[in-house]
Amino acid sequence: MSGLTLLAGTANPGLAGAVASELGHPLAEREAARFPDGEMHVEIRTSVRGHDIYLIQPASPPAEEYLLQLLLLADACRRAGAARLTAVMPYVAYARQDRRGTGREPVGARLIADLLATGGFHRVVAVDLHSPALEGVFTLPLEHLTAVPLLAEAIAVPGPDAVVVSPDLGATKLAERYARQLDLPVALVHKRRVSGAEVTVRGVTGDVRDRIPVVVDDMITTGGTIEAAVAALLEAGSADEMIVAATHGLFVGEAVRRLAALPLREVLVTDSVAAQTGELRARRVTLAPLLAEAIRRLHDDRSLADLLVHA
Amino acid sequence: MSGLTLLAGTANPGLAGAVASELGHPLAEREAARFPDGEMHVEIRTSVRGHDIYLIQPASPPAEEYLLQLLLLADACRRAGAARLTAVMPYVAYARQDRRGTGREPVGARLIADLLATGGFHRVVAVDLHSPALEGVFTLPLEHLTAVPLLAEAIAVPGPDAVVVSPDLGATKLAERYARQLDLPVALVHKRRVSGAEVTVRGVTGDVRDRIPVVVDDMITTGGTIEAAVAALLEAGSADEMIVAATHGLFVGEAVRRLAALPLREVLVTDSVAAQTGELRARRVTLAPLLAEAIRRLHDDRSLADLLVHA
Amino acid sequence: MSGLTLLAGTANPGLAGAVASELGHPLAEREAARFPDGEMHVEIRTSVRGHDIYLIQPASPPAEEYLLQLLLLADACRRAGAARLTAVMPYVAYARQDRRGTGREPVGARLIADLLATGGFHRVVAVDLHSPALEGVFTLPLEHLTAVPLLAEAIAVPGPDAVVVSPDLGATKLAERYARQLDLPVALVHKRRVSGAEVTVRGVTGDVRDRIPVVVDDMITTGGTIEAAVAALLEAGSADEMIVAATHGLFVGEAVRRLAALPLREVLVTDSVAAQTGELRARRVTLAPLLAEAIRRLHDDRSLADLLVHA
Amino acid sequence: MSGLTLLAGTANPGLAGAVASELGHPLAEREAARFPDGEMHVEIRTSVRGHDIYLIQPASPPAEEYLLQLLLLADACRRAGAARLTAVMPYVAYARQDRRGTGREPVGARLIADLLATGGFHRVVAVDLHSPALEGVFTLPLEHLTAVPLLAEAIAVPGPDAVVVSPDLGATKLAERYARQLDLPVALVHKRRVSGAEVTVRGVTGDVRDRIPVVVDDMITTGGTIEAAVAALLEAGSADEMIVAATHGLFVGEAVRRLAALPLREVLVTDSVAAQTGELRARRVTLAPLLAEAIRRLHDDRSLADLLVHA
Amino acid sequence: MSGLTLLAGTANPGLAGAVASELGHPLAEREAARFPDGEMHVEIRTSVRGHDIYLIQPASPPAEEYLLQLLLLADACRRAGAARLTAVMPYVAYARQDRRGTGREPVGARLIADLLATGGFHRVVAVDLHSPALEGVFTLPLEHLTAVPLLAEAIAVPGPDAVVVSPDLGATKLAERYARQLDLPVALVHKRRVSGAEVTVRGVTGDVRDRIPVVVDDMITTGGTIEAAVAALLEAGSADEMIVAATHGLFVGEAVRRLAALPLREVLVTDSVAAQTGELRARRVTLAPLLAEAIRRLHDDRSLADLLVHA
Amino acid sequence: MSGLTLLAGTANPGLAGAVASELGHPLAEREAARFPDGEMHVEIRTSVRGHDIYLIQPASPPAEEYLLQLLLLADACRRAGAARLTAVMPYVAYARQDRRGTGREPVGARLIADLLATGGFHRVVAVDLHSPALEGVFTLPLEHLTAVPLLAEAIAVPGPDAVVVSPDLGATKLAERYARQLDLPVALVHKRRVSGAEVTVRGVTGDVRDRIPVVVDDMITTGGTIEAAVAALLEAGSADEMIVAATHGLFVGEAVRRLAALPLREVLVTDSVAAQTGELRARRVTLAPLLAEAIRRLHDDRSLADLLVHA
Repeated sequence: MSGLTLLAGTANPGLAGAVASELGHPLAEREAARFPDGEMHVEIRTSVRGHDIYLIQPASPPAEEYLLQLLLLADACRRAGAARLTAVMPYVAYARQDRRGTGREPVGARLIADLLATGGFHRVVAVDLHSPALEGVFTLPLEHLTAVPLLAEAIAVPGPDAVVVSPDLGATKLAERYARQLDLPVALVHKRRVSGAEVTVRGVTGDVRDRIPVVVDDMITTGGTIEAAVAALLEAGSADEMIVAATHGLFVGEAVRRLAALPLREVLVTDSVAAQTGELRARRVTLAPLLAEAIRRLHDDRSLADLLVHA
Repeated sequence: MSGLTLLAGTANPGLAGAVASELGHPLAEREAARFPDGEMHVEIRTSVRGHDIYLIQPASPPAEEYLLQLLLLADACRRAGAARLTAVMPYVAYARQDRRGTGREPVGARLIADLLATGGFHRVVAVDLHSPALEGVFTLPLEHLTAVPLLAEAIAVPGPDAVVVSPDLGATKLAERYARQLDLPVALVHKRRVSGAEVTVRGVTGDVRDRIPVVVDDMITTGGTIEAAVAALLEAGSADEMIVAATHGLFVGEAVRRLAALPLREVLVTDSVAAQTGELRARRVTLAPLLAEAIRRLHDDRSLADLLVHA
Repeated sequence: MSGLTLLAGTANPGLAGAVASELGHPLAEREAARFPDGEMHVEIRTSVRGHDIYLIQPASPPAEEYLLQLLLLADACRRAGAARLTAVMPYVAYARQDRRGTGREPVGARLIADLLATGGFHRVVAVDLHSPALEGVFTLPLEHLTAVPLLAEAIAVPGPDAVVVSPDLGATKLAERYARQLDLPVALVHKRRVSGAEVTVRGVTGDVRDRIPVVVDDMITTGGTIEAAVAALLEAGSADEMIVAATHGLFVGEAVRRLAALPLREVLVTDSVAAQTGELRARRVTLAPLLAEAIRRLHDDRSLADLLVHA
Repeated sequence: MSGLTLLAGTANPGLAGAVASELGHPLAEREAARFPDGEMHVEIRTSVRGHDIYLIQPASPPAEEYLLQLLLLADACRRAGAARLTAVMPYVAYARQDRRGTGREPVGARLIADLLATGGFHRVVAVDLHSPALEGVFTLPLEHLTAVPLLAEAIAVPGPDAVVVSPDLGATKLAERYARQLDLPVALVHKRRVSGAEVTVRGVTGDVRDRIPVVVDDMITTGGTIEAAVAALLEAGSADEMIVAATHGLFVGEAVRRLAALPLREVLVTDSVAAQTGELRARRVTLAPLLAEAIRRLHDDRSLADLLVHA
Repeated sequence: MSGLTLLAGTANPGLAGAVASELGHPLAEREAARFPDGEMHVEIRTSVRGHDIYLIQPASPPAEEYLLQLLLLADACRRAGAARLTAVMPYVAYARQDRRGTGREPVGARLIADLLATGGFHRVVAVDLHSPALEGVFTLPLEHLTAVPLLAEAIAVPGPDAVVVSPDLGATKLAERYARQLDLPVALVHKRRVSGAEVTVRGVTGDVRDRIPVVVDDMITTGGTIEAAVAALLEAGSADEMIVAATHGLFVGEAVRRLAALPLREVLVTDSVAAQTGELRARRVTLAPLLAEAIRRLHDDRSLADLLVHA
Repeated sequence: MSGLTLLAGTANPGLAGAVASELGHPLAEREAARFPDGEMHVEIRTSVRGHDIYLIQPASPPAEEYLLQLLLLADACRRAGAARLTAVMPYVAYARQDRRGTGREPVGARLIADLLATGGFHRVVAVDLHSPALEGVFTLPLEHLTAVPLLAEAIAVPGPDAVVVSPDLGATKLAERYARQLDLPVALVHKRRVSGAEVTVRGVTGDVRDRIPVVVDDMITTGGTIEAAVAALLEAGSADEMIVAATHGLFVGEAVRRLAALPLREVLVTDSVAAQTGELRARRVTLAPLLAEAIRRLHDDRSLADLLVHA
């Protein structure tokens, strides 16, 4: 596999190492430290001249740090003669800031996309972005991989009485993708305005009575959405043992405490983000084979079609 | 209002004229014809040097024609010394092509956005785009206006027993915006997989029994979505008299015939697109005051905040 | 010929197929249809990752349609990992709009050139553009091929008494190129102001008496220029049997009727444009060998020098 | 006329001063010297912050020097806070290199145009470019002024028996413009292939017998074209006293000697280029009023339509 | 002062407030917080449409945070219709990474400069950058202000026996600027190789015996340079009471402890960076008047010449 | 070495030929002449399609000529299908104009860097630029080679009593690099303000008594700096026989006369610039092996690390 360089920032060394193992190709040596004044210093220790470089770095929190480190590494590669530069970002922060919401806000997703273009990348690889519409936001060509097959395969399906549940409207298409692979029906938790006054309730659409819900989402941040979905499902008569699966487990704030208190048989996330889950025994499904396969095919100029989100 | 130029392509002369009337400012004289070989010829008849130009042209079907005409007019303006060039596009085609869906497709929305940037515009004004996430797709700053207040005000609300209905998941947030203004509850027609097999049914979430539905969507193209929603609503026991409101009435293919066959008390659309509705007595709510107010404020450097989609 | 992809839009499937046959390399499968709302949908059916792609699409009338389709196909290729993207455009519309003529007009040729650059192409192949000066208008490198050798060879030269005729000043250099290959003298039809008053007449410069004119031009649109030239030639005593040759046969409006009424022994055009000639028995000289040879050499990194217009 | 800055390089101080006088507005003080190592040093002595700057500098030979000086001055203006930067280039070198002629050549005209865009200019003002098609070559908006009215007015028309003569095909449209203003007919000197062998002769089309030719061209470089035209005209029986008019008088090489030897009653050129004409008593018609009027209108945002080449 | 907006990030609210007070113009209300997942959220509370915006934010450590916040604020301004956007960055991180030093490193300074250009700024205001050569690194026009006059004026000059000392070669030109204003001689501490072996010593050039050193530098980071300079000065017989002045006081790591242990009569820094100095009684000279004056003149289109570094 | 093209402008044919000899690869045939009107004409005589092109052209005086020629050659290569284009510029003019010094000046170094980027180059190779910080000024990746090892090796070291001397502060780091290779100590000539009044003297820091100075600098222009350094060294008691070494020998103005009058045992420069040294017997150390090795490795995608300036 001559001419290939795997390079990693410091955001998720475990995942980067696992990708390298899958590929049987070592990570390029590099330095990534800070000067006493807090500025980052990066340096690549091997020649990358003419190489096809895959820079593995999720933009997970603190995203500003990992983004700037990614851009510095890219600049070093570019100046050192890299032939092609691909950002492998299993998690992309600011993906939800894809519009101005309440007023004079930035469109953070576009800013991140533009910074990557400025940084000299030729291509971006991401996994289960918050919205497929982010493809249009990226100036660079985007390979939008999906971890749904990996996660769906890892779920110990609890029998034909299970039901895939989308915890809000935004995850409905994702739930359909899980359901297709698990051969299960779909239900939907939704917030809805029920009167002229500003009253909204959370209800469940679809048959969940006595069924075991498999609640799926693209990411778990504070755990609040899952917590509310579980309450709505119990109220709708679902089994009181559930499964939760999400591609990105950020587990920020009260997330671990909240989820640990719910009747969850299993919580599955990938290792896209190197977050700690403490008391919560979340199962990590590794993205390494998926990312390695994508890198292998990109380097060999073969189609990625069956690895991509089709939405 | 010195230094302002209103210019229109041929896509929707009625709307352009109405905007000009609202502003009390004439449309600039221009030629827009075709040479014998089919190439378009445009020419602006008055000096635009140093002017703040608003080029009114929805990219409605045939979008390729109106887009290229828009770009030609913009080039003429730029070369003739325009100081600022704003594309006022009440309808933007290709907005739904914001991702690669099933495979090696283009991201049409981004292409259109990039062509507008190449064309020398400084800013785009649009109305109720298919998705608020298109803001990130546009390279140019986008003023994303909404016609919901105009349409909601125009609806003859049939009393407290009405209910705003989203005909599919994609229109849910739009339905909430109508509901807030009309002080009504929201129901939702949705397609859902009901078993492990590939069986999907259309159901209704929310209380519609004996209520008069106000079905809302961003646009009416073939009328198929409305037709299916009406069937689902009737099956769910709604009143058999309904109202339909949508910002963009394209009415392509069988749309007019289909809608005319439904128990619709009223169909409301804006004049964003100059489509014919034939036998269907659709009511047109004009966008002219909204666009005129937006132009007035842009020209005067005043805030548009209360005219924008907040999503 | 690994790594090569031939792709065609819908503008001239006959020519695209002939080029593929020449190369012994199939056209890539693709979809090119319209959605019910009139938006174009394109999709490429085979992997193009890492490929050197030649996208065959003349921008013939309706140019706006074929241009946007070309740009959509290019975007699909770029996002799917194309290594190099060449627009093979045997006919390029708007080539005559290379200046502002009478006033505040666009420079359409430059706009088209800029759209192609925005579309992600790396190179453009064209044939007998209206003016060699368009090379400077194109931002992308341009391979300006010429069909003159093909056409000249196809002309059944009527003997040493023939004369190559340029029907107006603009075609003079083209006529010289034909004359060199056919080993014939050149004459020139010209409009000229003959007095202080606004009186212009069409005269003939050069010896045409009793000679058989071979009238050459870059394109035939309405046939008006040819019609006037024939009249002037007859008046100047030429033989009353003539030959007409042009690279691009658009035959718009009254062209077929007009030319059919003239004493033309033969009309030769290439298949750059897929126009119908009805009652006029125009002979088509195919560009397929020329385009195939250019593609073969570009793909193999060999010189195109002897295929290019030298002006 | 607040906010206006007139700035000049060293290419044509006489013309720059005359423009300043016409406008009643002094040239900004600046330094333009060379360091001992030959590098140019420029510095602007007055504040230009927020100003609308007109940088007067023909790119006459040695064009590389005047171009780089122009770019250095522009960079100084841009960094010093210029609001708008217009290159006033009465003569633009490399305009004839608008295509690759015989092979692997640059397209010099486009390179110059791109360097001006890189240099931070917003607009270019030029006079009687070699070809109107250069408008498409320029990335920046171009104001293509014409000196034909000034020159035509300055010609002492020798009576109704005069005839405007184009000395080659390229100047035909220019000759028409002179003829319209002078109310005279047009004749044309042309080179033409007269047999199958490579034999070309120079002939005259149009009635010149006993008429006084007014030979017009866009520029006089070596004088060779004029010399040959005069010979052809005399052979065709014209009066043996002629007038020559051209916008740009470069008078390089043998030009002065050649023209001095011809039966020319008068040679008129503008002061676009600061060339010496020695023994040849060429009359200089100053461009100052034209350039001053263009600057005045550009600064005041008024139309330039009647000052432009219409081609 | 209509049309002016002052906006501040969170890097140095004290300085931003002081600038606003100096200008008698309030800071625009804005939100700058973090979402639970750690992403930054910014929003501007007042209309900035058509405004000339000055965004005050030093890129002090943690630079990645303040830089991304600055870019997000700029994006919000740009989309909300800002007419002009100036980054007022009294401190610019990564300024020393202006070359690849030991190998395959990034050029961090250029990356920062390019991110600012991508972010939509029109101009950058900085103070005493590590090297004047950074002006060429910035793509955007840079106003390189100097705090030397403010600091020099604030130094209680200890009499004619004082001497300005540059603690290393890099600060020599800075020392000359202090010396000119304080009317004092200059001495220089330098490291120098003293033999063929790799032996370097720190010596003092210039007369410092019994003189009171005024040690000046552009910034104080760890204090190590100052500590070594003080030792060299004492060894060279200087007075044992010194003054230290630097524009940027970052005081990272051991800096406060180190400097507190030295025989320093006074340490002067500006408030460019909001660092704590704890036990070290460093005197802060505020940049507010300088920045306010620069903003006032930029807004009014007046020259900044006398506020700039001349090097 | 297939696919490699060496191409040279006219600035330094000797060096270009030597590089070609070193590589055993001929210079590509090209024309580089002037038209009668002074415009440059370049043309490449062999196919460069798909080639990796190294364009050898120092931007030595007259820099404007060699720069424009370089850009014209690059444009020809780009249009003719070059795959990669590297500017090999052993000398880069305007490198010292990297900041605005006394006022409203351009930043010439950045302008040159931007022109090279506009010209379509992918990479620049330079030798011992005036300042390592120019790496950040270049938009394109820069390979900053050093001739110090070549020159140091060529110096006939006069024994252990020699001392490397930096003739001013700017060359100190360069002197250290020479000293490391020659295993010698370093001394420093410096100008310094010695009192409150504007009095500066030139002194020597470091032990030079009876030692033979090896005065080193990046370039020799007028020889003034060397002349002053020699005077200071003699006054400080150095040996009265010295050696001078510099990468770039421009020898402008009085340089040759000045240096010939000094007690110099030897003057060493490289052949980066094709200047004449007349009576001064300067020894030329050729850069050809260095440039050839850099080109060989770039073409083969191997590391250049040990050939670069590390600063």
